[in-house]
Amino acid sequence: MTATPLKTLTVWRLKQGRIDETDDCLSNEVPVALVYNGISHVVLMATPQDLPELALGFSLTEGILSSASQLYDVEVLQTPAGMLVNMDIASAAFLQLKGRRRNLSGRTGCGLCGIESLDVVKPVITPVKVRPKVSAAHISDALDAFASLQPLRAQTGSVHGVAWVNGSGHIQALFEDVGRHNALDKLLGFGARAGWNWSEGFVLVSSRASYEMVVKSAVLGVGCLVAVSAPTALAVQLAQEANMTLIGFARPGQQVIYTGHEYITLAD
Amino acid sequence: MTATPLKTLTVWRLKQGRIDETDDCLSNEVPVALVYNGISHVVLMATPQDLPELALGFSLTEGILSSASQLYDVEVLQTPAGMLVNMDIASAAFLQLKGRRRNLSGRTGCGLCGIESLDVVKPVITPVKVRPKVSAAHISDALDAFASLQPLRAQTGSVHGVAWVNGSGHIQALFEDVGRHNALDKLLGFGARAGWNWSEGFVLVSSRASYEMVVKSAVLGVGCLVAVSAPTALAVQLAQEANMTLIGFARPGQQVIYTGHEYITLAD
Repeated sequence: MTATPLKTLTVWRLKQGRIDETDDCLSNEVPVALVYNGISHVVLMATPQDLPELALGFSLTEGILSSASQLYDVEVLQTPAGMLVNMDIASAAFLQLKGRRRNLSGRTGCGLCGIESLDVVKPVITPVKVRPKVSAAHISDALDAFASLQPLRAQTGSVHGVAWVNGSGHIQALFEDVGRHNALDKLLGFGARAGWNWSEGFVLVSSRASYEMVVKSAVLGVGCLVAVSAPTALAVQLAQEANMTLIGFARPGQQVIYTGHEYITLAD
Repeated sequence: MTATPLKTLTVWRLKQGRIDETDDCLSNEVPVALVYNGISHVVLMATPQDLPELALGFSLTEGILSSASQLYDVEVLQTPAGMLVNMDIASAAFLQLKGRRRNLSGRTGCGLCGIESLDVVKPVITPVKVRPKVSAAHISDALDAFASLQPLRAQTGSVHGVAWVNGSGHIQALFEDVGRHNALDKLLGFGARAGWNWSEGFVLVSSRASYEMVVKSAVLGVGCLVAVSAPTALAVQLAQEANMTLIGFARPGQQVIYTGHEYITLAD
């Protein structure tokens, strides 16, 4: 099991009627098992970097932990089958997780975690308490800088980037992953550990805005999500319920605002 | 619960320093529960069209059914919480499914269906028996025609398209979905019902080639997968194991061949 984010392979380029051998850089996706107090809970397929941030972010956005302080220790191990992230978490959170697992007993799922019937499918939305005013100029400036901060994407064309743009319009951090949810979890985990104030600024994502991106962001209190590609109708509906500003098809100087247009300021 | 693939919403366009209200067309993603002989097994988030094809394709690519003839009847129902697809399947397949569910009891998962530890994470690969020679001209011609056959993508920018290009180079069918795996399952379900010969021709996808796209295609015997965007390193590795030709970054006249370059013919 290689635990590097990139892998170089021999490939063949077909161009102008010829096939030529060359080297190419691809992104690695590896199984990452999240282990809580010795119990393996879930396996994610992820880009093998920033795994402590991924583990913390996932734990928070999935409601396993209610704060970063409930995570006492993280250790990343490489095994032949994949990566292990061993977490030492607060007893209260671990007891709650064990209870949740008992309730899910007998269920399996695809597409929605562990969900097998429509009765339990509606996502639980955490409405954002403080919704920021966001400057259109900050969005355009961040979009201008965005691509140059995604080295894995530049090399492979197959990973997503997620950035946090703070209230002053600066990109404070950017994380990459083959899975857009993983990239978001990495960012949210990093910011939660650093104690960031999510009530000013916005999350910028290189991908579509699917409904899970809205749900995960809302859990941490992010009030504005800006996506380079399209949202789905469900993402817009959940953003409304979450009291969140949602922007899509974002280009410098040009965006589509799906919810919260009254929170976008045109003058600095 | 609206069961149409598209939804029109009021949005606000920010352009040239102004914000103007307008209408926009978004793709709907709705919960779709797959029910086998009265037992709800799994919920997928999907574009609500071609659901019988999705149900059959998913059942085949996930190994719940071994042939289309094991599906006796399909009925699609709309409920307030989402769509129900009731399937009447062969007893042998249903008994096997019940056995598999017992084994999974107590597991839940995110990212990989129902998988909680690294021990069971390696996908089971079905090597393709008959691998086709594919004409480079057929790939270019299919790419030329591809975009105009994706009406949902044209209207929303947020769905994936998956087509089957037969041995004569003709696009025989194309399916769209917000989930690339769903679009693939719809195509494979449709083709399995029609008794298509998967050993000539190729599957063309508008998205990245993730490892699940390779695994699902191999189950049906598809020997060549062409993706408009990038594959991951794991997808390439599994395509090698599956005896499958894998092509990425596909444009008319220009592609990157990751496996099976000796199966691409340059002259017609």
